[in-house]
Amino acid sequence: MAKPSRLPDPKEDFSAWYVEVVKQAGMAEHGLAKGTMVIKPHGYAVWEHIQRALDDRFKATGHENLYFPMLFPESLLNKEAEHVEGFSPQVAVVTHGGGQKLEEPLVIRPTSEAVIWNTYANWIQSYRDLPLLYNQWCNIVRWEMRTRLFLRTSEFLWQEGHTAHASEAEAWEEAVRMQGVYREVAEDVLAIPVLPGRKSAQERFPGAVETLTIEGMMRDAKALQCGTSHFLGQNFAKAYDVQFLNDKGEQEYAWATSWGFTTRMVGAAIMTHGDERGLKLPPAVAPVQVAIVPIYRADDERSRVLEAAAKIRDGLAGNGIRVKVDDRDQHRPGFKFSEWELKGVPIRLEIGPKDVDSDQVVVATRFDGSKEQVPAPDIVMGMAARLDHAQRALFEDAISFRDDNMHEADSYDSLREGIAAEGGFWVGAWCGEAACENRVNKDTSATIRLLPLEPEDPGGPLPRVRENRNRAGYLGKGLLTAG
Amino acid sequence: MAKPSRLPDPKEDFSAWYVEVVKQAGMAEHGLAKGTMVIKPHGYAVWEHIQRALDDRFKATGHENLYFPMLFPESLLNKEAEHVEGFSPQVAVVTHGGGQKLEEPLVIRPTSEAVIWNTYANWIQSYRDLPLLYNQWCNIVRWEMRTRLFLRTSEFLWQEGHTAHASEAEAWEEAVRMQGVYREVAEDVLAIPVLPGRKSAQERFPGAVETLTIEGMMRDAKALQCGTSHFLGQNFAKAYDVQFLNDKGEQEYAWATSWGFTTRMVGAAIMTHGDERGLKLPPAVAPVQVAIVPIYRADDERSRVLEAAAKIRDGLAGNGIRVKVDDRDQHRPGFKFSEWELKGVPIRLEIGPKDVDSDQVVVATRFDGSKEQVPAPDIVMGMAARLDHAQRALFEDAISFRDDNMHEADSYDSLREGIAAEGGFWVGAWCGEAACENRVNKDTSATIRLLPLEPEDPGGPLPRVRENRNRAGYLGKGLLTAG
Repeated sequence: MAKPSRLPDPKEDFSAWYVEVVKQAGMAEHGLAKGTMVIKPHGYAVWEHIQRALDDRFKATGHENLYFPMLFPESLLNKEAEHVEGFSPQVAVVTHGGGQKLEEPLVIRPTSEAVIWNTYANWIQSYRDLPLLYNQWCNIVRWEMRTRLFLRTSEFLWQEGHTAHASEAEAWEEAVRMQGVYREVAEDVLAIPVLPGRKSAQERFPGAVETLTIEGMMRDAKALQCGTSHFLGQNFAKAYDVQFLNDKGEQEYAWATSWGFTTRMVGAAIMTHGDERGLKLPPAVAPVQVAIVPIYRADDERSRVLEAAAKIRDGLAGNGIRVKVDDRDQHRPGFKFSEWELKGVPIRLEIGPKDVDSDQVVVATRFDGSKEQVPAPDIVMGMAARLDHAQRALFEDAISFRDDNMHEADSYDSLREGIAAEGGFWVGAWCGEAACENRVNKDTSATIRLLPLEPEDPGGPLPRVRENRNRAGYLGKGLLTAG
Repeated sequence: MAKPSRLPDPKEDFSAWYVEVVKQAGMAEHGLAKGTMVIKPHGYAVWEHIQRALDDRFKATGHENLYFPMLFPESLLNKEAEHVEGFSPQVAVVTHGGGQKLEEPLVIRPTSEAVIWNTYANWIQSYRDLPLLYNQWCNIVRWEMRTRLFLRTSEFLWQEGHTAHASEAEAWEEAVRMQGVYREVAEDVLAIPVLPGRKSAQERFPGAVETLTIEGMMRDAKALQCGTSHFLGQNFAKAYDVQFLNDKGEQEYAWATSWGFTTRMVGAAIMTHGDERGLKLPPAVAPVQVAIVPIYRADDERSRVLEAAAKIRDGLAGNGIRVKVDDRDQHRPGFKFSEWELKGVPIRLEIGPKDVDSDQVVVATRFDGSKEQVPAPDIVMGMAARLDHAQRALFEDAISFRDDNMHEADSYDSLREGIAAEGGFWVGAWCGEAACENRVNKDTSATIRLLPLEPEDPGGPLPRVRENRNRAGYLGKGLLTAG
C-alpha cells in the first residue's frame, strides 16, 4: 500500500475528501469500462457484513432467496408503461453472443420486476400459492453518465426483494415491514440515522403506486436515499397478466412489492462517519475491529512484544472479535497508526516493551481520538463493551449533526432563503402539485426527499396514508442535485 | 405446487429422470433468454449452503473477497493468446448502453483473469505486496449451444479465486491447497466422492500451465468435473505485464493461480444421490433437514397433533436443525410424504393422534426408505446423529457405486471393449501424446478425465509431477460426450 498523503478537509471540500478517502483507505477504484467499479477487499468486507445483517433479517421475516437470469429479451421490459419509460434509457444491450448476431437483443437487468413478474405468471394460480416472499442478491447495470464510486456506478451490487400477495393490505404491510428492516440495518448496523417516509409522485420508482424510503444526512448536510421499498399495487400483475383464484372463487390480479438495498450504503457509511483523518467504520461492519500495533526497536524487544500482542489477539479472536496484529517490519508505528485511522478501525491497541513490563496496553479509540492505558488482563473482557460504545457514539454523533442541520420553514420565503443560506434538511408544507415541487427545485435546487407517513401512526394502513398524502413534507438538498 | 407425477426410472433413462426431477422438485427452470436458468428457492438454498461451506474455508486459508466489474473492453481479453482463443467464441458482447452505440464494445466476463490481472499490474510493485489471496462471488456468461439446467447454462453463478505469488513453489502450493478445499466440500458437504488429479494438455484451462481437477461419478456411471484449480505460471503476469521487485532486488513476473466452483455442483448433488422417488439431499446442504407431517382426520385431532408437532419442531430448531411442519390442509398425508421424498428431505417425521397418545413418532429416513417408531422424548436429542448417519450413508453408497464402476485396462483392446460394454471409469496407461488421446476419444467417445498426481505423494512438489506427467491416466466417459 502506498503511503497515505494528507486528506482534503471534509468541511471545506467534502466531495474531494470523499474521492480521496475511498482511494487511500483501499475501499474501491474505477474499472476500465466507463462507470464501473472495483470493490477492494476493505470495501467489500463492509458489504459482506451488510449482506449478512440484511439476509438474516429477510429470513427471520419469512423470505427465501432465489436467482433470476440477468439477461432477458428487450421486449419484456416494454409491458409496464412507466417502467419502460423509466429504465429504457439506462439499459445495456447485448446484441452478439457466441460470435453471432442475436435474433432479438437481450438487455442486462436494470432491475428485475419484468423478468420476475413474467415468471410469476406461471407460479401463481390460486390464493394458496401466495404469498411469494422472494429475494435475490445480484448485480445490476444502469448506464450512468456522472458516476461516483459506491454512490452511482453503471454496475452495482444489491439485493432485490419481489413479493406477491393475495390482498392490497398484505402487500402494503410487507412494503412497510421491509422499510422497517432497512431502517434497522441502517441505524443499528451502519449507525446511520434515517428518516422514514414516502416519495412524491415524481420521485417514485417507475411503476410503483407508493415508494417508501429512508433518507440519511451525510456530513455535507445533504440527503442520501438509503434504501427503498415499493408498493406496486397490481401494476405489474396487470402488465404480465398474473391472476389468481381468490378465496371467493374469483380471478384477481396479484398485489406486489419490491425493495432494494445496494452497495451505495458502503458509501453512505463513509460519508456519515468520516473525518479529516479518514474513515470511522461502525464496529458492526468494520472488517478489522481491533488493530494491534506492536512497538519495538531492537530484536530482543520484538519477540517479547509480539508474544504479548499475540496473546491479546488470541483472547479477542476467541471472543468473536475481528482482530489483526500489524507485524509488518517495513513500517514504523507512526505510519501504522495513521493507516489504521485512515482505514477507520474502531479500536487500536499499542504495545511496547514498557507496556509489556507493566502488563498494560494503550487503547486508542477512533471515534473520539482518545487514548488511555488499560491493564492488559482487562482488555479482552472489556472489548465488546468498548465496541458497543463506539457503535452507539457514532450513531448519536450522526443524530446530533442531523438535528443541528434540520430546520422548519413557516413560509415559502423562509424556505427559499434558509436553504440558500444554511442548506440541510427543511420541513415545510407542500400544496401537493408537481408544479409547486418543480418551482421549489428551480428556486432552491432542493428536491422533496420524503413525505411523512402518518406521524401518529407510522406504517399505518394504506387508506389513511393516501388521504393525507399531501399534508407536509421534509425537504432537503439532494446529494446529486448539488454534487 | 402441481401434483408430482411419476418420475422416469433413472436406471433406464437417466437424462430424462434428471430433467424431470429438477423440474418437479422445484430446483430450477429455464429462463426466457436461450440457455438461461431460474434457480428456484429449493435449488438456491442448496447453493447457499455450498457458498457458506466454501467461503468459510477460503477465509480460514487467508483469502479475502472483493468484486471486479462484469463488463470490460473486448480488447482486454486479447492479451493472453490461449485465453482469447478459448473464450472469444463464447462471449456475450454489449454494443449499446444508455441508448447510444458504444465506442468500444464491452464483453460480459466469461471468467475474470483478464480484468483482474490488468488491475493487479497496479497493485503489485514489490514482493512485500504479495501474496494477493482474493476471491469473488459472481455471475458468468458463456454462450452455450447445448444447455442443461445447473450443468451447462449460458449464465451461471460461481466463485473465482485469483491469487498472485512471489514464487512458483508458493503458487503451486496454493493451486494444490484449493483443489484440497474443493475435495473437502465435495466429499464432506455434498457427499460426492471425487478423484483428484490433473488434466491433460488438451483439457486444460486456456492459459493454464496445469489444471487440477476433482472428478465425480454420477449415477449413470459418467464423470462430472466438480471444480478446477489452475496453476497459471507466469502466463497472465507476462500478458498483462505484472512485474514486482523480488527480495533480491530484481524485477520478476508474478506467479498465478485461479480456481472456481459453480452452481453446477447443485446438479452434481442431484445426479449423485437421487433415485426413482426423487432427490436425496445430503443433510449438510438440505434446505429442510426434517419435515414433520401431522396426520389427522377430525378437527379435535388437528389441534392435538399440531401441538405435538410444534413442540418437536421447536426442540429441533433450538438445536440448530432446519425443520418445517407441513400443516397445509389442502393436501393429504400421502401426498405430502411423496412431495418431501421428491424434494429429498433427509428425515420425515409422521405424527398422528395415536402417536400423540403413546408419546411416539414415526421416523422415515429418505436414504434407505426405512421407517421406525421412536419415543417422542428421544427425537430431538437423537436427530443430529441421525442426520450425520444419513450424510455418511449417502457418501458411502456413492463410493460403492463408483468403485463398482471403476475398472483397469491392461491393453488397448480391453480398454476399448470394456468402455463399450460396461462404461464407467477406466484406468489405463497413456503414451502422453495428443494423438493417442484423440484416438481413444474417436474409438470409444471417452475423454481423459484426469492424470494422477504422484500416487505416493498426492499434491507433491511440481517438478516431480512434471517428470511423471505421462505415466498413467484415469479414463472415463465424459458426461457431455455421451449426454
